[in-house]
Amino acid sequence: MSTAPEAVVNVGADLLADAIADQATAVTRVDWRPPMTGTEDDLATVAADPLRRTANERALAAMLDVTATLVDVAPASEVLGLQRGEFLHAGPPIAWDRASGPLRGGLMAGAALEGLVDDPEDAVALFESGSSVSLEPCHHRSAVGPMAGVVTPSMWMFVLEDAASGRRTYCSLNEGLGKVLRYGAYGPEVLTRLRWMGDVLGPLLQKAVRATGPVDVTGILTQMLQMGDEAHNRNRAGTLMLLRDLSPAMVTSGMDSADIAEGLRFVGGNDHFFLNLAMPACKLALDAARGIDGSTMVVAMARNGTDFGIQVAGTGDEWFTGPAQLADGLFLGSYGPDDANPDIGDSAITETAGIGGFAMATAPAIVRLVGGSVPDALATTRRMHEITLGENPRWTVPVLEFQGTPTGIDVSMVCRTGILPQINTGMAGKVAGVGQVGAGLVTPPAEIFPQALRRLAVLARARQHRL
Amino acid sequence: MSTAPEAVVNVGADLLADAIADQATAVTRVDWRPPMTGTEDDLATVAADPLRRTANERALAAMLDVTATLVDVAPASEVLGLQRGEFLHAGPPIAWDRASGPLRGGLMAGAALEGLVDDPEDAVALFESGSSVSLEPCHHRSAVGPMAGVVTPSMWMFVLEDAASGRRTYCSLNEGLGKVLRYGAYGPEVLTRLRWMGDVLGPLLQKAVRATGPVDVTGILTQMLQMGDEAHNRNRAGTLMLLRDLSPAMVTSGMDSADIAEGLRFVGGNDHFFLNLAMPACKLALDAARGIDGSTMVVAMARNGTDFGIQVAGTGDEWFTGPAQLADGLFLGSYGPDDANPDIGDSAITETAGIGGFAMATAPAIVRLVGGSVPDALATTRRMHEITLGENPRWTVPVLEFQGTPTGIDVSMVCRTGILPQINTGMAGKVAGVGQVGAGLVTPPAEIFPQALRRLAVLARARQHRL
Repeated sequence: MSTAPEAVVNVGADLLADAIADQATAVTRVDWRPPMTGTEDDLATVAADPLRRTANERALAAMLDVTATLVDVAPASEVLGLQRGEFLHAGPPIAWDRASGPLRGGLMAGAALEGLVDDPEDAVALFESGSSVSLEPCHHRSAVGPMAGVVTPSMWMFVLEDAASGRRTYCSLNEGLGKVLRYGAYGPEVLTRLRWMGDVLGPLLQKAVRATGPVDVTGILTQMLQMGDEAHNRNRAGTLMLLRDLSPAMVTSGMDSADIAEGLRFVGGNDHFFLNLAMPACKLALDAARGIDGSTMVVAMARNGTDFGIQVAGTGDEWFTGPAQLADGLFLGSYGPDDANPDIGDSAITETAGIGGFAMATAPAIVRLVGGSVPDALATTRRMHEITLGENPRWTVPVLEFQGTPTGIDVSMVCRTGILPQINTGMAGKVAGVGQVGAGLVTPPAEIFPQALRRLAVLARARQHRL
Repeated sequence: MSTAPEAVVNVGADLLADAIADQATAVTRVDWRPPMTGTEDDLATVAADPLRRTANERALAAMLDVTATLVDVAPASEVLGLQRGEFLHAGPPIAWDRASGPLRGGLMAGAALEGLVDDPEDAVALFESGSSVSLEPCHHRSAVGPMAGVVTPSMWMFVLEDAASGRRTYCSLNEGLGKVLRYGAYGPEVLTRLRWMGDVLGPLLQKAVRATGPVDVTGILTQMLQMGDEAHNRNRAGTLMLLRDLSPAMVTSGMDSADIAEGLRFVGGNDHFFLNLAMPACKLALDAARGIDGSTMVVAMARNGTDFGIQVAGTGDEWFTGPAQLADGLFLGSYGPDDANPDIGDSAITETAGIGGFAMATAPAIVRLVGGSVPDALATTRRMHEITLGENPRWTVPVLEFQGTPTGIDVSMVCRTGILPQINTGMAGKVAGVGQVGAGLVTPPAEIFPQALRRLAVLARARQHRL
């Protein structure tokens, strides 16, 4: 027998709470940590900004109102007006000299694909000279790209549209796993596959999408989250639903039946195929929240393999950047942590929209790919509710009793709690040409949130001043 | 402040445990209930049976060793040798006079499909007379049928094979939901669909399966359980994976592309299509455990709409039957409990094999179809471990940290604990011709387990006698 307090409110360290709980006393856990160092004044300024509350409500509502539909598949030269020598890439702006191995490898493959060089290795001199080539972030052209995210004029793109606004976003077609351009590989098999995708897969998908009519990508995402996908590193159910929706029109496309069968086999054999639809669907939703003065909501998280950048609804198109981190996870074959490049790709747009790492609770099988435990996966989704403005009523997590996914990362809440967004991601080899080496869990560099908060505070003070 | 015991072991009623837990005291829950009335002596006899332990180990191992592959699709007349006037049905044996509405409706549709009558209504007289028609359980012909489970000679069947033993099981092709034969509907749309399935879908699937080679149904089930399907009332991911595997060969089958597209649309539009592969895969596994003297493992649970029957590994082909129960669940449209027929169909073979209701924890979204809550779904899977001999190492539940599904229902454990197997199921209208009225949760009639236990005890005593 013992005497004990009837209840203890625990703030901070879990060890204490666990010890009290072990002593059979009710514990109310409050996940409190001190604010990030040096953010107190900016937090106070932003909290007192009279625009903040309604701006964030507007930003969240605008994002949740978007329904993304797949309306076309066409070459980047047509739909983005991309010219010979223009290259898009993942993440915030970067030049060749600071580009990581996988981004360089992707650019080299892209240069060979476009016929700018015969041998991808020759593209190094081309990019070093910088003449007749230019690099620009996908995000600056309404696009997103997984991993290296390299887009060249001849690559076929998914075209997504929000019917209500007519706004569009774009993403290339997913190549599969292993030795692929987006992981920085540029061998002959990479180029052969990309050429087949341009010659056969792109036209086949174009015919199928045009004949089928708009495919409800947001709706497929809703279903996927009930089928063990978190739509970043698990896209198996989504890929299968896309096949279900497009295969009848593929069959009646008039294309050669061997080509149709090869197309079905390629898509069906690549569980990540739908990622390249999930990503532009998330961007389409988040772009609706751009440029809302006073909003502290993050509208993009993106990495180029060197820098991790975020953009915020209330700060226009400004990037807040810091060094991309190494993921902690599981490695393929004999690869290890020394082989991995820092975090790369626009795919963190999924977490920005409340899925991916934020929805890990609905995809517990993913711990076998990215590491961690099932309780971690459940805890991660719960923790992300601490730094988000709301829940997505369409995208729910059955095992959490159909709670909506945590949606709308709030720069203030991140700074106030010190809780960083959880991203799960593939890992590229750090040497150009290697390809994928693993998958794991990663966070942004902490300092970019105080940077963004500082800018929000400066803008709030300036508005205050003008009154 | 209070004084309290440090821990309480709770046996039985959860209310007590909840009350103690509310008082912030550690509770160890032991799900104990008294044995079923009158089973004490038989439980003691069976527990003392020297064959029991190894027989159950053999039964479980035999079942888990089976890999079910889809090897062919062909008419029942060919693969089952079914003759004109022969009808298979779900559940234990029954004659027309005791048949429920949905079974009668299914038989009437089957008679019209075979051309025995022009108008399904005319089949009533045919079955009442009993001349030139015969009824036999699917289970007696290595087959299983969902709901009414009616099989006639012209229906096309999935053919599943265990490569190691060459044993085969069979199931008809799933018709979809609503007004369909298996739910007892027999209108013109039912017959039109069945004729199309015989003329187009069956031949298309046959060509695709023969060209593709064996499809690993057990492997698809493994994946489904990681994708929110429990393979009884959710088969969405399974259906999509089947389409993925067969669609390339459909495309190159040489059949008319409009027919191929229609076939793809039909299968893709019916989330339950894979149920008719899950069921024979489960039967194939369980049949491996039939006829093992001393084993108390259930090898079939099946309902004909009037009676619920089980068969047990240690009691040969004997059925132990009691009245089929009404499911508790959710109703379609304006239907209510008064419209529902008691439990019907061979689909409880899924629960017998450890999936369906036993794997509800992996498919929490199913509570929106069959009722109940997400915590109930998790608790159900945990509770089923109390009455099963082991876990399936291939079929795991990610959210329960990859614990294997509870597998091999033990008649002794059911009688000792009073815990009944949990089945989730569709509900047919009780009037012939109506079709589906809902879906819900149901259990077998309790008395069939003491019946089976009695027979096991009699056999154990007889063996003892012979020593």
